[in-house]
Amino acid sequence: MTLNEALQKYDELQQKLFALNYASSSIYLDSVTVAPSNTAAGRSLALGVLSGLVYPLAYGDETGELLEFLTQHKAELSPQKAREVEESKRAYDETHLMPQEEYVEYSVLLNDAQDVWHKAKNADDFPSFAPYLAKIFDANRRQAAYIDSTKAPYDALLNQYERGLTMEQLDAFFSQLRDTIVPLIHRIQTEGAAIDDSFLYKHYPLDKQRELSDYLMEVLAIDRTHCTIGETEHPFTLNFDKNDVRITTHYHENSLASSMYSVIHESGHALYELGIGDEYQHTSLAGGVSMGIHESQSRLYENMFGRSEEFINLIYPKMLELFPEQLAGVTAHQFYLAVNKAEPSLIRTESDELTYSLHIMVRYEIEKMMLSGQATVEELPTLWAAKMKEYLGVDVPSDREGVLQDSHWSGGMIGYFPSYALGSAYAAQFVERMKQDVDVSKCLAEGDFKTLNAWLGEHIHQYGGFYPPTQLFENCCGAKFDANYYTEYLKNKYMKIYGLE
Amino acid sequence: MTLNEALQKYDELQQKLFALNYASSSIYLDSVTVAPSNTAAGRSLALGVLSGLVYPLAYGDETGELLEFLTQHKAELSPQKAREVEESKRAYDETHLMPQEEYVEYSVLLNDAQDVWHKAKNADDFPSFAPYLAKIFDANRRQAAYIDSTKAPYDALLNQYERGLTMEQLDAFFSQLRDTIVPLIHRIQTEGAAIDDSFLYKHYPLDKQRELSDYLMEVLAIDRTHCTIGETEHPFTLNFDKNDVRITTHYHENSLASSMYSVIHESGHALYELGIGDEYQHTSLAGGVSMGIHESQSRLYENMFGRSEEFINLIYPKMLELFPEQLAGVTAHQFYLAVNKAEPSLIRTESDELTYSLHIMVRYEIEKMMLSGQATVEELPTLWAAKMKEYLGVDVPSDREGVLQDSHWSGGMIGYFPSYALGSAYAAQFVERMKQDVDVSKCLAEGDFKTLNAWLGEHIHQYGGFYPPTQLFENCCGAKFDANYYTEYLKNKYMKIYGLE
Repeated sequence: MTLNEALQKYDELQQKLFALNYASSSIYLDSVTVAPSNTAAGRSLALGVLSGLVYPLAYGDETGELLEFLTQHKAELSPQKAREVEESKRAYDETHLMPQEEYVEYSVLLNDAQDVWHKAKNADDFPSFAPYLAKIFDANRRQAAYIDSTKAPYDALLNQYERGLTMEQLDAFFSQLRDTIVPLIHRIQTEGAAIDDSFLYKHYPLDKQRELSDYLMEVLAIDRTHCTIGETEHPFTLNFDKNDVRITTHYHENSLASSMYSVIHESGHALYELGIGDEYQHTSLAGGVSMGIHESQSRLYENMFGRSEEFINLIYPKMLELFPEQLAGVTAHQFYLAVNKAEPSLIRTESDELTYSLHIMVRYEIEKMMLSGQATVEELPTLWAAKMKEYLGVDVPSDREGVLQDSHWSGGMIGYFPSYALGSAYAAQFVERMKQDVDVSKCLAEGDFKTLNAWLGEHIHQYGGFYPPTQLFENCCGAKFDANYYTEYLKNKYMKIYGLE
Repeated sequence: MTLNEALQKYDELQQKLFALNYASSSIYLDSVTVAPSNTAAGRSLALGVLSGLVYPLAYGDETGELLEFLTQHKAELSPQKAREVEESKRAYDETHLMPQEEYVEYSVLLNDAQDVWHKAKNADDFPSFAPYLAKIFDANRRQAAYIDSTKAPYDALLNQYERGLTMEQLDAFFSQLRDTIVPLIHRIQTEGAAIDDSFLYKHYPLDKQRELSDYLMEVLAIDRTHCTIGETEHPFTLNFDKNDVRITTHYHENSLASSMYSVIHESGHALYELGIGDEYQHTSLAGGVSMGIHESQSRLYENMFGRSEEFINLIYPKMLELFPEQLAGVTAHQFYLAVNKAEPSLIRTESDELTYSLHIMVRYEIEKMMLSGQATVEELPTLWAAKMKEYLGVDVPSDREGVLQDSHWSGGMIGYFPSYALGSAYAAQFVERMKQDVDVSKCLAEGDFKTLNAWLGEHIHQYGGFYPPTQLFENCCGAKFDANYYTEYLKNKYMKIYGLE
């Protein structure tokens, strides 16, 4: 085989994987948006067969040999092609030990689990979901060994979402967060000025909330010819390619902020995908580089931008236009305070910026215990309640508002949650770096998202998977990651909001 | 290769084709419902690659040999397996002469054409669509030769949608229809009582029309856990499998009957798919057997059931509840007359039952001319206007209301239209046969669609592709197809409606 033949074969392989991934994405999107409720069986069969077509292309022996050959000729490849091969090889190395049968079974399991979780959440029926979750955790334990049997299983899984991330790093990181957040919450509860957010829970008609979503996406300068919004049980972003990105939200009739900040959060993800360089399209470098970096973008738009006072001032006239009765007598400043009210609560996606990381810690602790065999699926509801009490001081009244609230585990994403907290911390450091080049406050006040998006596009988005996450981060910030940026940001913001010294 | 090995290989092949077809259906459905407007490029790439995966499985040499081997062992196969192989072989024989490259290009062309047609229709811009349509007609001419080079090209294409159907048969059929319909329309226009249908064109809010759709599907006893309704430019039915069927409609704010009868029409298609026997799932016998039989079901529900006076009486209380102002002072009988008003018009899908076949004749004549080289794509708008004037006596004010109105040609379906007229005629004969077993009029009056659906299920739906269409028809009716049933039905119905002797 000549190098040219190998390269041609490799490019064909990438196109096939793109197409099969495109197909699965489409089937998944349909299943969580418009598919009739009783249709999982045919979908499982189709997804199983499709994953059986993916396996040999991505993880088969012939592909292994091809990637090995290209790796040996790395010096002769363009920098981009070399990185593409490196990423394909990494995916191959992490999965090829898993037998094809197991790979297919897992894809069928996840499709079924998605359906069962959805119904279980609606019916507040954890036991019906438990057997599926047990299988998912079992499969992830086995997969951890395939990925790297020398690592602790949870470390192997964390690595899938943020390369090189370990429990040791996370323990230190979360410990630092806790040392800032817990005393701060305590001071807020004892000394802070009271904040009224009751108006956020009035009746907000869904059609007006839909209008708000469109308006927010317009303000954030999202090109709607490349990005639509849909409605699902759990909000998410899905990218077919850089020119075709979908976000979803979930509207609640008696809560304004829930969907509002979901839309801004998912828009952050979408802007990342929409901004990736054309040259990486349909290759192994397409898409955001890691979940930590991805969540840094979503959390940055949601919090550093979306929960800033400048942004609230910018959008408030439109809010009053859409919800004149609900917001009668409420000033923009009061609205700003309300969407930043720090208060321990049950639902992660609706929690405030300060207590948010405590929700992540609950999931992190539980995942650690599950992977190390210290807890079983049956114990999860009890464990969840205990951890929520320990970290947030709240009582969990139902599994629906507890262990069933998120779709990550039913989707097989174990080790994903820490990315949210890490992403939030990355975001704080990104914004500090950004301020050296751009007057962020002025851009937010004027709604100049073109400038903000362009800076993030230039420093982060455009690179797709070209730079590994740590290198991308350090290229952008000119420094190593430092969680102090985040803790300082939280302290400054919340001390001010609550009138503390 | 033993017979058992061959059968196992064949079953795996069918599952793969099911999954790849499922994927393409999902991608298509997404593209015409919720996909952002500017996303055709990635979709084309994905669909092209997927069709490149389909080709060797369905039409490759190895598959040809496998099907040949199984055909030789036909006597040893179960009746169902023998028919499965026969249908797979037929598909193979019709397509394997087409080079894979051409097959893939055609699938990409259809995806692009769908997008271009959609935009061209909205902008009333035929020239932008013309080059795509020219390519589609060229491709169909070539395909006709691959299917059967001994036949006239249009006969070869007709055969794809209704086995064995020829221009000779259709010329006779349409000639008989014309001999009934044209003088009848003439009498209606000169001697018929005037029918007021102006109230059908008042303002009908979309949300109320959506409620009506749900109500109609409930009345027709469609299991919504297996069938949803969406919104598209052009209504259609799509089946993932017998447990997952989607219908779509297009709401017009100033027309009630348009979507109403689209929903009933597509429900007829859906009930056929939902009623197919489990044993044919995910095989070459899944799905309705031919387009003629499929349209017989949709047209039967739309017209023989949906436009009957019993049905209107049944649903009218709900109509009044949904549209009290629009229908104020209108009786059920007046409504019945209005939805049956015979009047030459521009849009096929909104035309009445009597003039409908004339619309089909326009398309049939044009397709014949295009396939025999007597007309070019550039001439289509002029030709369309001339034929509409000739058959229906109407002037065509725009291409949007003319040659661009239907999505069939952009979807590559050339030779499909005659199925609609043929299906309507089949339906008339089916209903006459049905009346021997079931009191159709009473069922309609009482809304007993369970009984009606069950009869059609037992005599038609359950068989899927097991019996070839002619055999299915004759098994059901105990007689050969006879267009007199249809012409008699039309004469009786319309003479009565218009008070003619």
